[in-house]
Amino acid sequence: MSKDYGIRKKLNVSYETAVTKVIEALKKEGFGVLTEINVKETLKKKLNKDFRKYIILGACNPTLAYQALSNETEIGLLLPCNVIVYETGENQCVVSAQNPEMFLSIIEEKEELTKVATLARESLNRVINSL
Amino acid sequence: MSKDYGIRKKLNVSYETAVTKVIEALKKEGFGVLTEINVKETLKKKLNKDFRKYIILGACNPTLAYQALSNETEIGLLLPCNVIVYETGENQCVVSAQNPEMFLSIIEEKEELTKVATLARESLNRVINSL
Repeated sequence: MSKDYGIRKKLNVSYETAVTKVIEALKKEGFGVLTEINVKETLKKKLNKDFRKYIILGACNPTLAYQALSNETEIGLLLPCNVIVYETGENQCVVSAQNPEMFLSIIEEKEELTKVATLARESLNRVINSL
Repeated sequence: MSKDYGIRKKLNVSYETAVTKVIEALKKEGFGVLTEINVKETLKKKLNKDFRKYIILGACNPTLAYQALSNETEIGLLLPCNVIVYETGENQCVVSAQNPEMFLSIIEEKEELTKVATLARESLNRVINSL
């Protein structure tokens, strides 16, 4: 399994602490969290299945999103940028952010969009490195 | 610009009607809408920029999502499946859904995941065709 589609880091903190730290780090880079999906709760509620603690955060930097949308209307199919946090053990978590450059590679290259994707990837790299 | 990353249809109805119809059609195929991002409102609020009426719906079929997550923990980076609706004129809209097979092509192939992506793509095809 190729792992290049995520920018990831293991953290030796509780799941709850990891989620708080990620949201704060995203905010420092100008990313607001527009959506939150509690995967564990959703699977329990909808299917009565037990799953690890897991959240999908929909992060969006409005300036970058506006640049992307102005260049390609349907880029909303790739927005917001997912950042996931999941528990791997006691006080052990993984944080992983979509690599926007990888996702953009699905669609044909367009210089302006590539620039925006690179800015977003660099920004998310800083977020993950700061954790 | 390649358009294969979206499954799309033009509708000759108001934006509001299109959004309602899409949510109903998704429900019929077992997709709940877990998140909604009002792009127009968000860009106005965050950047004071005017933009067309545009919504990003995060659609999720819990059974397919559970199968995907059980096979590949980080598949949450690709979930939920985005379905966008945007206005192109008076009583003219476009509805476009992510093609899950295209998105899965980012990551290495894994038979079980490919099956799930195909089921999701077929299901979303039926959603869009029913509009």
